[in-house]
Amino acid sequence: MKRTPITLGIDIGGTSTKYGLVDVDGNFYGEGSIPTYAELPASALLARLFEAIDPLLQNAPTPVELLGVGVGAPNANYYKGTVEQPANLMWEKVTPLADMIQKHYQVPVFITNDANAAAIGEEIFGVAKGMKNFVVVTLGTGLGSGIVVNGELLYGADGFAGEMGHTTVDPDGRDHGSTGLRGGLENYVSATGIKRTVFELLAKRTHPSPLRDVSYNQMTSLQIAQAAEQGDLIALEAFEITAKILGMKLAETVAYLSPEAIILFGGLVASGSLIIEPTKRYMEEYLLKVFKNKIPILPSALMDKNAAVLGASALIWGELRKMKK
Amino acid sequence: MKRTPITLGIDIGGTSTKYGLVDVDGNFYGEGSIPTYAELPASALLARLFEAIDPLLQNAPTPVELLGVGVGAPNANYYKGTVEQPANLMWEKVTPLADMIQKHYQVPVFITNDANAAAIGEEIFGVAKGMKNFVVVTLGTGLGSGIVVNGELLYGADGFAGEMGHTTVDPDGRDHGSTGLRGGLENYVSATGIKRTVFELLAKRTHPSPLRDVSYNQMTSLQIAQAAEQGDLIALEAFEITAKILGMKLAETVAYLSPEAIILFGGLVASGSLIIEPTKRYMEEYLLKVFKNKIPILPSALMDKNAAVLGASALIWGELRKMKK
Repeated sequence: MKRTPITLGIDIGGTSTKYGLVDVDGNFYGEGSIPTYAELPASALLARLFEAIDPLLQNAPTPVELLGVGVGAPNANYYKGTVEQPANLMWEKVTPLADMIQKHYQVPVFITNDANAAAIGEEIFGVAKGMKNFVVVTLGTGLGSGIVVNGELLYGADGFAGEMGHTTVDPDGRDHGSTGLRGGLENYVSATGIKRTVFELLAKRTHPSPLRDVSYNQMTSLQIAQAAEQGDLIALEAFEITAKILGMKLAETVAYLSPEAIILFGGLVASGSLIIEPTKRYMEEYLLKVFKNKIPILPSALMDKNAAVLGASALIWGELRKMKK
Repeated sequence: MKRTPITLGIDIGGTSTKYGLVDVDGNFYGEGSIPTYAELPASALLARLFEAIDPLLQNAPTPVELLGVGVGAPNANYYKGTVEQPANLMWEKVTPLADMIQKHYQVPVFITNDANAAAIGEEIFGVAKGMKNFVVVTLGTGLGSGIVVNGELLYGADGFAGEMGHTTVDPDGRDHGSTGLRGGLENYVSATGIKRTVFELLAKRTHPSPLRDVSYNQMTSLQIAQAAEQGDLIALEAFEITAKILGMKLAETVAYLSPEAIILFGGLVASGSLIIEPTKRYMEEYLLKVFKNKIPILPSALMDKNAAVLGASALIWGELRKMKK
């Protein structure tokens, strides 16, 4: 009986690790999630992961053939297959993650960071199908970016290209907890960034606001979005400021890269018109004439799906496509 | 008798247009320059250009075979072969420059802007030989940049990638004469930019300085460099400010692109340690840890040569190499 070709996608986060068996059309043949236990070494995570995945491979609804494993992980080095000093995982200084997984499955393994995985996911399964030049910006706790140029992910010389979250908005601006750099984009544009902006506005303005009853540690970007939707002036201004900074930086991204489209991904983006419409307006304001009214800002098509796992799996579908060229 | 394969490089500037016959090692088999006459249409320039170049082709020191023509021109669209609304030339709205030249020589013609030509020139003939990922920044009247990724020039979707000179330093900052945008990098870092900084400092500081005897229209970046070399405090501070802004922006470039090296080109760079050393220092300050102490800032190797023509000719050598792959 013919076996269905599938790839295994794994997304390693600080809290949980997700996995799924995915065919070339993005259909799942099994998926799941286990806690990461960030304080344990990578080998412990992998042992539990293999234990969870192996039965899925054997008992899939139709027989499957595993073509490769794609992994999204923090500080993943695509060229070396290593994870190097991730901030949220207490792993060794350098973990040869691709080799460790390859030993178990005996198929090609590719790893990259989650924003790159999101970008290749959009190209294979999402709104970037058929595009050769685009940028995906992921807005979560931080801000990540994945850049596709001439149909391929941009890794650069070191494999660390696309660190847009750490480009500077204001050299004398907000501290970053782990990099030691100041005023970087993700300190302003991310779930954490918009909360920091809300706290500046709670100090600056005097409007009453339900956000005045929530502590810094308790406040979420969802609460800010809900307040904005109910017309709260502090929350609305925070979205406007966030969109202005993001729009200006995206104009810069366009000047560097001349993409066909920019795709936004993440919880903040689900707030739809609160962020996409004003970001587009500000981006246009800062664009050179040759770029004006040409470059759409699109919400990700994968946000309701298991996007991180789809993206990790797409990494392999992308490599297979490259080999066919 | 065997003919030597050569390419014709043409660099079209607002004032003069340079040309040269160049072999695969960067040797010239004839070169020259004619005034551009910016107020006349492109066809008039080309007629005079062909008149000047045709005898060179016939009377080269050894018989030559023309393989292709590479052109560096303002607002050149690589994909379409057109020049679109250049600020300094009173040409038609869209000039089909590549077609017009191809009709005369009956060989492949490629066009691009001068910063891209400089980048490919460094790759074929200069300090970027063997590099796959690097950025060339040209500091002239304005600031241009040419980006090489995976061994190929980055054009992006529209052919207009690499417009680093128009990324924002300060959204409320200095006006740009022709784009209508504010606070762009070339308003600070370029021959004009450093002069504008000197004029701010002449207002802000009270030190005596020979630069206080020169009008805005008379002052050149060479005068500023000479004053700095003689210890003038205004000029030294202007170089320091210029290097700080450039260094910060180059850290951003690195975060986007992860290049092996950054190459600086142009008159300001000839001032050597006045610009390269402090730019490197500031760039390191703003780099993420993964990029620190890895990425050299190199002066162009072509500055004493006919670099613009070499770059334009390298465009063809680069295309021929791509075809061989």
